[in-house]
Amino acid sequence: MTTPVRLALLGCGTVGQEVVRLLHEQATDLAARIGAPVELAGIAVRRLGRDRGDLPVDPALFTTDALGLVKRDDVDVVVEVVGGIEPARTWLVEALRAGKSVVTANKALLAEDGAALHDAAAEGGADLYYEASVAGAIPLLRPLRESLHGDTITRVTGIVNGTTNFILSAMDATGAGFAEALEEATELGYAEADPTADVEGFDAAAKAAILASLAFHTRVGAADVYREGITEVTAADMASAKGMGCTIKLLCIASRGPDSTGTESISVRVHPAMIPLSHPLASVGDAFNAVFVEAEAAGQLMFYGRGAGGAPTASAVLGDVVAVSRNRLARVRQASESAYADLPIRPMGEAVTRYHVSLDVADRAGVLAAVAGVFARHDVSIATVRQSGRNDDATLVIVTHMAPDAALAATVEELRRLDIVRSIASVLRVEGGS
Amino acid sequence: MTTPVRLALLGCGTVGQEVVRLLHEQATDLAARIGAPVELAGIAVRRLGRDRGDLPVDPALFTTDALGLVKRDDVDVVVEVVGGIEPARTWLVEALRAGKSVVTANKALLAEDGAALHDAAAEGGADLYYEASVAGAIPLLRPLRESLHGDTITRVTGIVNGTTNFILSAMDATGAGFAEALEEATELGYAEADPTADVEGFDAAAKAAILASLAFHTRVGAADVYREGITEVTAADMASAKGMGCTIKLLCIASRGPDSTGTESISVRVHPAMIPLSHPLASVGDAFNAVFVEAEAAGQLMFYGRGAGGAPTASAVLGDVVAVSRNRLARVRQASESAYADLPIRPMGEAVTRYHVSLDVADRAGVLAAVAGVFARHDVSIATVRQSGRNDDATLVIVTHMAPDAALAATVEELRRLDIVRSIASVLRVEGGS
Repeated sequence: MTTPVRLALLGCGTVGQEVVRLLHEQATDLAARIGAPVELAGIAVRRLGRDRGDLPVDPALFTTDALGLVKRDDVDVVVEVVGGIEPARTWLVEALRAGKSVVTANKALLAEDGAALHDAAAEGGADLYYEASVAGAIPLLRPLRESLHGDTITRVTGIVNGTTNFILSAMDATGAGFAEALEEATELGYAEADPTADVEGFDAAAKAAILASLAFHTRVGAADVYREGITEVTAADMASAKGMGCTIKLLCIASRGPDSTGTESISVRVHPAMIPLSHPLASVGDAFNAVFVEAEAAGQLMFYGRGAGGAPTASAVLGDVVAVSRNRLARVRQASESAYADLPIRPMGEAVTRYHVSLDVADRAGVLAAVAGVFARHDVSIATVRQSGRNDDATLVIVTHMAPDAALAATVEELRRLDIVRSIASVLRVEGGS
Repeated sequence: MTTPVRLALLGCGTVGQEVVRLLHEQATDLAARIGAPVELAGIAVRRLGRDRGDLPVDPALFTTDALGLVKRDDVDVVVEVVGGIEPARTWLVEALRAGKSVVTANKALLAEDGAALHDAAAEGGADLYYEASVAGAIPLLRPLRESLHGDTITRVTGIVNGTTNFILSAMDATGAGFAEALEEATELGYAEADPTADVEGFDAAAKAAILASLAFHTRVGAADVYREGITEVTAADMASAKGMGCTIKLLCIASRGPDSTGTESISVRVHPAMIPLSHPLASVGDAFNAVFVEAEAAGQLMFYGRGAGGAPTASAVLGDVVAVSRNRLARVRQASESAYADLPIRPMGEAVTRYHVSLDVADRAGVLAAVAGVFARHDVSIATVRQSGRNDDATLVIVTHMAPDAALAATVEELRRLDIVRSIASVLRVEGGS
């Protein structure tokens, strides 16, 4: 009998319990695929004796001493599904330095301090896998870091947060406002009691950092990502988007290209944006995730699936467990982090995008000329203008061509100070068109 | 300076030329990603001196002696983009046995005699990679054979042939018949002069065999795949599909599950089928490919992108070149073929599907009762019946519930012999619903 691969599980919430279940149910298949059986050496939890359903596991495996478990000599692979920065970082750094393979779903830690983990992995000669950290079960990181290695990725555009996609899909479908849609999401279990990480875009920003790092062979951290959440998206914005044949999605966008001085650099941002209904991402509804990848030779690719949930995330975790276990048996480790390109990161002001600006204006002669003049002064070219209403109700809707974000922001700032502009009803970036 | 990885390229058509171009353009990046430069050791072609554009390559590298090139001691990796069974098989078996890594796009060879290649790879301790063989640039095989290894894949449904998808999309959009749409596809370069391999489903069947092998850890060859092409799909079929809120696609479907005796087994088939417009595959237009994967824990996943063309295919080839080159430097090889499950393959008659049957019938009392009686005798349950027209023009359109293909076929056979049935206008399988 081959020596089993011994696994320490840190965390036993929704995902952890599914991992335990799958390890049990698929034991025979996993053993055949790996070439050795997988055994649970221990499960670290915050509190013992909590109800964890009918987990098919020896109760003696539970411990509250995660660090002690990680350090045990009979542990080969550490699976972390706890989340958060500390104490997860301490545990994983300890494991990696000791040469133990790590499989983690911890996007916050990877985005905040991925360097600490990669460095520890290099030091210990250990594997660090994290497919489950972005887009749940969708096999995305491996394609990015392996399949597309012969190509140059130019842009990654993704819907990577299920909660906000559920909320925006509901606003689109029912005309509800943000607060109402959030309430529905909370009731249905799609939003947490404290939804800040999701609705303010922190979760998506962490994932954007991970995706950009892999796509562009450059260390990108959460702090490098421009971030705007969806709390200020209104029912009127959504209606306006629909009127233009668009919908609004919270997008993570990572792109590379020459900046204004011609230097190759990258831009990583998360914000709500209007996209045309004809764009493949527009039809990604509910809590689904999808990531659209553009590469020089491969062209356009899309990956679609469930971005969260116990079973989908556990599927991604176990795929990584099989990979690192095989590597251990073959006594090899996966190629370490690829950050050779080390491209500079462009500030948001230099990101190139389009704006949709909706203005309540006085209906008198010369208004359009004055407004157009402001755009021209900032070198922002106007693509379309639509005027509706009369008298006190006149509305101007302007969509621009591509321009640097700073120029667009300055334009809006100046419009705000204009006499004839009563108020700025909405400003939204527009993506996914030409 | 690290010793370079030396590459023999077999074939220099559209894909081969793109491979040469990308190797040249991305030399620096490839070297950084691999950890060593990649050099072309030679390019085997059928005829020297043919115009191959301005390839950035020393003309002395060209040779007509492919076998001699493969055998050279200074060749580490063999890239084959020639296609066909022989002489490709001889070259690749020779290379693998000699311990050279092989990257191939040859779906026909893999489906016809994958065993010969896998066995040679095991014998020589060499890598065999073939991402480009299915769905061009879409990273699909690696996710199937690695990312989803912790899960049980239950079904793979794909549009994997661009030519037929272009033809069917044109028929759907314009109402054209098959012959007319094929002519357009040929003019635009989407169909070859001899379109048999595409329109008769041979190409899709080869890909189905490769997908099923990976998804179900079982050796599946082209001969195991039930195959029907699209040459008999008519404009009337397409119109009828549209009337039901569906479209017609050439699908490859590989599924696993218990057969009638309860034995876990697999079914692999390629045929045109009606799918509802709400199905994610329905909107895959033109020459695009997409593969829909269902797994127990991961749920539904979809992969979308360009399935053919020089640059997309070359992107997939180079992704594999990076992987096998890294493996060589690390002195490891990828886990070999995984065929441990060795599931039996169900004959088409036992595949479970639904039928859409359109009958021209005499309009007289008792017709529906007689027709329904035939379905009942074969234990095929009817989901919907639609009757239109009167007198000599009466048409009955029947959609069934799920039933074994043999029972459906026998039902249609008996209907054909029925007096009151003037003719059977069309019989199409229906997929992607419940």
